Amino acid sequence: MAVYIASRRLSGGSTTSQLVGALRFTTCWRSFSTSFREERDTFGPILVPTDKLWGAQTQRSLQNFDIGGERERMPEPIIRGFGILKKCAAKVNMEYGLDPSIGKAIMQAAQEVAEGKLNDHFPLVVWQTGSGTQSNMNANEVIANRAAEILGHKRGEKVVHPNDHVNRSQSSNDTFPTVMHIAAAMEINSRLMPKLKNLQTSLHSKSNEFKDIVKIGRTHTQDATPLTLGQEFSGYSTQVKYGIDRVMCTLPRMYQLAQGGTAVGTGLNTKKGFDVKIAAAVAEETNLPFVTAENKFEALAAHDAFVETSGALNTIAASLMKIANDIRLLGSGPRCGLGELILPENEPGSSIMPGKVNPTQCEALTMVCAQVMGNHVGITVGGSNGHFELNVFKPMIANGLLHSLRLLGDASASFEKNCVRGIQANRERISKLLHESLMLVTSLNPKIGYDNAAAVAKKAHKEGTTLKEAALNLGVLTSEEFDTLVVPEKMIGPTD
Amino acid sequence: MAVYIASRRLSGGSTTSQLVGALRFTTCWRSFSTSFREERDTFGPILVPTDKLWGAQTQRSLQNFDIGGERERMPEPIIRGFGILKKCAAKVNMEYGLDPSIGKAIMQAAQEVAEGKLNDHFPLVVWQTGSGTQSNMNANEVIANRAAEILGHKRGEKVVHPNDHVNRSQSSNDTFPTVMHIAAAMEINSRLMPKLKNLQTSLHSKSNEFKDIVKIGRTHTQDATPLTLGQEFSGYSTQVKYGIDRVMCTLPRMYQLAQGGTAVGTGLNTKKGFDVKIAAAVAEETNLPFVTAENKFEALAAHDAFVETSGALNTIAASLMKIANDIRLLGSGPRCGLGELILPENEPGSSIMPGKVNPTQCEALTMVCAQVMGNHVGITVGGSNGHFELNVFKPMIANGLLHSLRLLGDASASFEKNCVRGIQANRERISKLLHESLMLVTSLNPKIGYDNAAAVAKKAHKEGTTLKEAALNLGVLTSEEFDTLVVPEKMIGPTD
Amino acid sequence: MAVYIASRRLSGGSTTSQLVGALRFTTCWRSFSTSFREERDTFGPILVPTDKLWGAQTQRSLQNFDIGGERERMPEPIIRGFGILKKCAAKVNMEYGLDPSIGKAIMQAAQEVAEGKLNDHFPLVVWQTGSGTQSNMNANEVIANRAAEILGHKRGEKVVHPNDHVNRSQSSNDTFPTVMHIAAAMEINSRLMPKLKNLQTSLHSKSNEFKDIVKIGRTHTQDATPLTLGQEFSGYSTQVKYGIDRVMCTLPRMYQLAQGGTAVGTGLNTKKGFDVKIAAAVAEETNLPFVTAENKFEALAAHDAFVETSGALNTIAASLMKIANDIRLLGSGPRCGLGELILPENEPGSSIMPGKVNPTQCEALTMVCAQVMGNHVGITVGGSNGHFELNVFKPMIANGLLHSLRLLGDASASFEKNCVRGIQANRERISKLLHESLMLVTSLNPKIGYDNAAAVAKKAHKEGTTLKEAALNLGVLTSEEFDTLVVPEKMIGPTD
Amino acid sequence: MAVYIASRRLSGGSTTSQLVGALRFTTCWRSFSTSFREERDTFGPILVPTDKLWGAQTQRSLQNFDIGGERERMPEPIIRGFGILKKCAAKVNMEYGLDPSIGKAIMQAAQEVAEGKLNDHFPLVVWQTGSGTQSNMNANEVIANRAAEILGHKRGEKVVHPNDHVNRSQSSNDTFPTVMHIAAAMEINSRLMPKLKNLQTSLHSKSNEFKDIVKIGRTHTQDATPLTLGQEFSGYSTQVKYGIDRVMCTLPRMYQLAQGGTAVGTGLNTKKGFDVKIAAAVAEETNLPFVTAENKFEALAAHDAFVETSGALNTIAASLMKIANDIRLLGSGPRCGLGELILPENEPGSSIMPGKVNPTQCEALTMVCAQVMGNHVGITVGGSNGHFELNVFKPMIANGLLHSLRLLGDASASFEKNCVRGIQANRERISKLLHESLMLVTSLNPKIGYDNAAAVAKKAHKEGTTLKEAALNLGVLTSEEFDTLVVPEKMIGPTD
Repeated sequence: MAVYIASRRLSGGSTTSQLVGALRFTTCWRSFSTSFREERDTFGPILVPTDKLWGAQTQRSLQNFDIGGERERMPEPIIRGFGILKKCAAKVNMEYGLDPSIGKAIMQAAQEVAEGKLNDHFPLVVWQTGSGTQSNMNANEVIANRAAEILGHKRGEKVVHPNDHVNRSQSSNDTFPTVMHIAAAMEINSRLMPKLKNLQTSLHSKSNEFKDIVKIGRTHTQDATPLTLGQEFSGYSTQVKYGIDRVMCTLPRMYQLAQGGTAVGTGLNTKKGFDVKIAAAVAEETNLPFVTAENKFEALAAHDAFVETSGALNTIAASLMKIANDIRLLGSGPRCGLGELILPENEPGSSIMPGKVNPTQCEALTMVCAQVMGNHVGITVGGSNGHFELNVFKPMIANGLLHSLRLLGDASASFEKNCVRGIQANRERISKLLHESLMLVTSLNPKIGYDNAAAVAKKAHKEGTTLKEAALNLGVLTSEEFDTLVVPEKMIGPTD
Repeated sequence: MAVYIASRRLSGGSTTSQLVGALRFTTCWRSFSTSFREERDTFGPILVPTDKLWGAQTQRSLQNFDIGGERERMPEPIIRGFGILKKCAAKVNMEYGLDPSIGKAIMQAAQEVAEGKLNDHFPLVVWQTGSGTQSNMNANEVIANRAAEILGHKRGEKVVHPNDHVNRSQSSNDTFPTVMHIAAAMEINSRLMPKLKNLQTSLHSKSNEFKDIVKIGRTHTQDATPLTLGQEFSGYSTQVKYGIDRVMCTLPRMYQLAQGGTAVGTGLNTKKGFDVKIAAAVAEETNLPFVTAENKFEALAAHDAFVETSGALNTIAASLMKIANDIRLLGSGPRCGLGELILPENEPGSSIMPGKVNPTQCEALTMVCAQVMGNHVGITVGGSNGHFELNVFKPMIANGLLHSLRLLGDASASFEKNCVRGIQANRERISKLLHESLMLVTSLNPKIGYDNAAAVAKKAHKEGTTLKEAALNLGVLTSEEFDTLVVPEKMIGPTD
Repeated sequence: MAVYIASRRLSGGSTTSQLVGALRFTTCWRSFSTSFREERDTFGPILVPTDKLWGAQTQRSLQNFDIGGERERMPEPIIRGFGILKKCAAKVNMEYGLDPSIGKAIMQAAQEVAEGKLNDHFPLVVWQTGSGTQSNMNANEVIANRAAEILGHKRGEKVVHPNDHVNRSQSSNDTFPTVMHIAAAMEINSRLMPKLKNLQTSLHSKSNEFKDIVKIGRTHTQDATPLTLGQEFSGYSTQVKYGIDRVMCTLPRMYQLAQGGTAVGTGLNTKKGFDVKIAAAVAEETNLPFVTAENKFEALAAHDAFVETSGALNTIAASLMKIANDIRLLGSGPRCGLGELILPENEPGSSIMPGKVNPTQCEALTMVCAQVMGNHVGITVGGSNGHFELNVFKPMIANGLLHSLRLLGDASASFEKNCVRGIQANRERISKLLHESLMLVTSLNPKIGYDNAAAVAKKAHKEGTTLKEAALNLGVLTSEEFDTLVVPEKMIGPTD
Repeated sequence: MAVYIASRRLSGGSTTSQLVGALRFTTCWRSFSTSFREERDTFGPILVPTDKLWGAQTQRSLQNFDIGGERERMPEPIIRGFGILKKCAAKVNMEYGLDPSIGKAIMQAAQEVAEGKLNDHFPLVVWQTGSGTQSNMNANEVIANRAAEILGHKRGEKVVHPNDHVNRSQSSNDTFPTVMHIAAAMEINSRLMPKLKNLQTSLHSKSNEFKDIVKIGRTHTQDATPLTLGQEFSGYSTQVKYGIDRVMCTLPRMYQLAQGGTAVGTGLNTKKGFDVKIAAAVAEETNLPFVTAENKFEALAAHDAFVETSGALNTIAASLMKIANDIRLLGSGPRCGLGELILPENEPGSSIMPGKVNPTQCEALTMVCAQVMGNHVGITVGGSNGHFELNVFKPMIANGLLHSLRLLGDASASFEKNCVRGIQANRERISKLLHESLMLVTSLNPKIGYDNAAAVAKKAHKEGTTLKEAALNLGVLTSEEFDTLVVPEKMIGPTD
């Protein structure tokens, strides 16, 4: 057990303050360690908490990038993605000569990472090297140490070497973008798509449920001709359905993996065919149709696939913002709003006002939409600022998209479950508003002529009466005639 | 009169196709010229339309940057700003030895540019060299040719030289940012501020006009405790007032002029004191407190002042979006919306529906707000992408901010004149909604206790009656007691 | 000829000031008219310049929306799109009973609009009613008056009626989004796609041309392992190729037309089948696969298709920003930069410094990219803010996307023609940098071992010599051995 | 100890699944509880983990808003801000009649919250009710239960009541925005400002340190006239200095507190003077000049102050993006880049390439800048979407700004400590580039004339020699004359 720290820095700096920094840092993250072991890299030895699997480069990053705190750790799908990739790399590397005992131990250790069992050993934050090198090394170090343990050795002995074995035929520059694509594709398929589909199904059900409820339409926020509440919800359902299509359209480029490009895209230090094999292995492991990237230079130097998919999420955010806004306005009231919808009551709105239902699920969802729009700009800025053979905004871009995917997925599910599913139509209110509307006067034109119809409408508007009252009052038709002519149900589609 | 074109390009290229291009180009811009004269720069001779004052470099830019068409011309405030700057430069240069007859002719020609009289001679688009060099040369060429005419010479003779005389002691790298600041500061002071102030005054008047109209409040779009319509408008008025403050806060940095920094900020080729004198001359010419930039390196290499001011406009856009949204929702109806406000009717909403007023001014304003938010992102991206001694997104940044200033100013004026000024309160509707509200039950607590009050509210909600009906029906108090207790007017402020 | 104006406004207002306003307004737009005729709508009579085809509603909008000036006119593709749509509508309406003589006259007049012949009669700005109603009426009025002339009648007589004939079976609420889709799809197909394809072809040619030039790679902006210049350009070419794919992926939703939805999406006042027929007519007219929108409610209330396509353009902007940045940095110099590329010289960089080529095309392009990113945010904000049955940010959204399409298309063409096509490799410089690089030491590892190789590299770095000099100096191998081992050409791909 | 859950939901729902949900939820957050107690609100009873201080409403929110997981918890400065506010509220409420024993216990409990001691009892995520009501209730519940314990009572007994005592005279609608302002103002003053000032000081020191190092300037990324490295850094220093000014300018509006506005801004249920007193108490507690908001309606319904401050941070992000980009490009190499700066080496760049220093601190910082730009858009969208008396994007807006503040502060500190402080000038390289530059030829003009000077430059460019070699070769002057004339040190400022 080491009792000192000997980190050398070319730029100088006091080792004492660094030790204190390291201690304070780990302390504040609630993972206080009473003992340390020495790990080393080409910079020399450095102390690492005994109970952690990480090595020297991870420890150095922890100390050099004290940015944002624990909340800013590399997102879990990235860590799991590293587990998947490193497992597949070991598998393929064994075909190319990696010692099978080491290869199998790496596969087992990587599987634990893929299952999230070693999350606590990935302390690094997003705001680090822009290539994600340090997180790649974190994965290499943790897997190497864990594989060594599996083989009966101790941490830090480098029986299984982070670079030579775990990172074999790889570079941070191709592993990190590969993991970005694995993580995003998995989150899309396992989290976002199912939840959006549920939401779409639920909106579609509502559209059916409400298909006979004729209501006033509103354009420019002003009263307009009628439609059914089901038609209104069919618009929402279609928006979400197209949103799903939009994301699907971006997947062909998301399924392309950079792996095999190594440092600059040329594939230096790999064998021919490595790139195709590893993509196949990842595809098998994940059950997703990953392929090797057609052009590795593009795959390292740009993350257009992320900017593109973020653009699809941005569109979904615009859709959901509109839907949630409509629902809260249609559910406004209970007395002084539009009041056409009754939203589920999930928590006390107010202890004194029965009937006050705050549209809290709409609020959570619209806040998520705003954040997704913001993340999209961040991703775009990062995506546009690559230089030469490498874009070095990788962790930010990955984090932004995964954040948006998670928030949109979770918020869609919450909105579906806690709001959409329970929406009821306030039929009485809908009917009242519909029949008070002056716009139904349109139906009288054929019978009494435009001028008389306009006179009816103007009288009703001026005197605040119903159209029927005004019409009868003006003596232009009988009550029966009015009832025969003014039938909103006949105004909700084209005629034969 | 030249009958050939002899533009040389290092990259080769057919002179014939370029001539054809030039002809077609000017044609499609409706400024067809039947004759040309020869102008030349260090690239050699080039044909320029006889009736235009510009020279070789302007002509070359026209041909090299066929992007966006006439709508994308450098905005007029930039052109006028060049007039102001070149006039001041000539004035100061005479102090440093510029021949007074030439200096005075330049001042006269520049004055014509400043007055917008020579706008047709500034054909270049925003999407050119990122330093705005070509627009600086456009100004130099036009002023030189015009000054030569004033002195009795012909265009193209270079009696007054674009570089040696008009551009003396200057570089595009300091003139363009100087003109950016002049143009923006003038637009802020002459266009945006007065119009925002008018809008603020108008909203404030409405706040006074409506100060006694008690109405239902709405939080989460749901019915809440009452306030006056005047209080509601006081919030809008305050938002606009703070918006004005926000822009004012950014002016100290906008009043700093880069002039005197020349090519890289050092002031090479200027005399000591030139920078201070020219800022003073511009200040005198514009009546605005311009000063020389404290650090010329910052002034050339970054346009943070524009990003900052755009941020203030972005805040105003957020404010106006909220205000216009509220106003259109409060004015929604006439029968099936909230209907608390009556908006001025400026154009036919519909030929059949009297009372249908589309809130078109709100719509124009909110569209402007969205564009301003977008321009802000463009300006931010441009502002963040400078390299070394020069930011080369200058024309885009300038255009974006001037666009936002113009749109916000004009739309504020239109909104004030065609909407806010004419807003009327629908007192009957406001009163009806207020008294139907269940939330007034709060006032009964002290008299009949929370449980009874809640019972009243619940009964009213369930049965769709008024609170009073429910209360009388439950027999918890008399009609007189109810009327004494339930007084919304007493709910609109803190108590003594 | 009318000599007075009698516009009534519910909100009051002086008719004198309006007349003056109208006169000043038309004056400042350089279309001064000495005479006026009277046109009328449901608001009453209003004076219109005699030489203009527009009618009362257009004139009223001109006066009510004095925002932004002439530069902000509705973009030409929208006006042409109205020509196409109105022509098709007349054609289909004749099938449903429209008088053929009127129908044919409308078709002829609309064709003139489609060809851009009547552009001067479309004076309205983007910042108007958010439904674009006034531009729809502008089209209806111009076509009606022009059709009347074709039939031998006078303007303003309403022989051909703007609403009853030209706008038959239509509402602004479905025509404007239909025209948005027509305009965008045509611009994509006729402007953006061909220009992006040219750019992609040109980058691909360069990739082939440069396929044997081995150069230093750069990651983190630092020296890295080598690749060919052709490989580097293949990344750019792939980015643009995928950009094209990205836009293509969005077209299925862009080809859906709202026409037939009328006011709120129900199709009230149309006959069954009208929607399908008109989409077919537009498809035939434009040779693009337009279809009727699957759900008209979505098509009116949301413009997600525009947000989505803008997202694709935003991705292309990110790609082009990266490419243009690389090219200007690789072309930096001539002496103190990277200097690997020689960019075409299109205009004088400086009169004194031969070899100074400012990368002006890169600058114009990157400015365009920043604006496209900005427009995207504006479009997103507008797209997310629809209410109920209608999104009322239509003109802003349309204008933003068309602006981005135009700028990206034109700038891509300019960049291709004036930059990419003429790029030359500075082979000497590339070779010099490559062979100076310390990173080639990697190749020595197998022969002399890691420690000796590192010693060679460190010595070379410390003493500023070549690797070869250091190696020979250390005596670890011979000159011949070095030359045999250090072959960058073998480092540019995977090994067998 | 309760053994059942009895949450009622109007929308129905299985209590079993909710219990399971609650258990799973708390499990996955690593705070597994083996026992529960019953808490209740107006919705009825609900089970809460025994070891947690929160109550029914917090528990309900946990179950209703399963969005984003633990990383998305309300940021700590908000929680601490609630501690400060509730302490001050108790203090002022005691002046207005709150039982002093209860008041003091609340103050003590609130102080613990303010110190971060009870962070584990604040489990709610940002994506909840848009008013932050549930976090306000979380604070009320935790403080009430803790205060009860202090007074010797048990949790859940409501001896100290969350609403009646802790939330007395308050509404979520005024407390949450108050806490937003407290948290942001404290983070600005304690985190961002000191770190930006350190960075500015460090850049300024470098500017002094490098004041005599003359180097080549670069405009358009091309070689230009010289300046000192100190001048270059003075531009960076000025950018950061102005960034500090920009944030300071926004503080007057940030120091305005909404407290006292209660539900809709009227101050219903408060006593006159409460608002002023509580602002004074917060000012005293925090040592910051907080005042009561001039207009409470604005303070609840809009968060323009946050949009504004975020705009200032966005400007700083643009500045730092530029600075970090410059530094990494100036430090590019070691052999094939610009190589003018030597950046501190903090971690292994590569095990094989000595001298390869990845500019990782620049990368972390620029990623942060991109995220700050993104957050700014999210905040703007949220800020623009308020309705009527309440903006319900509060938690998102607060989280976005606090995120940006934290990231910018931490990254500035990391960048200063691990990069700027250790930057060294590569004097040899700088000098070499400077003297190779062709642009120094400018100095020869007065002596040998423009034509001869141009000939010298052209010859040097063509033949790849130094200017001096070319000049001597052409025989236009002697070696001594050249050395006397070509003195870059004289080109770095205006002349007398």
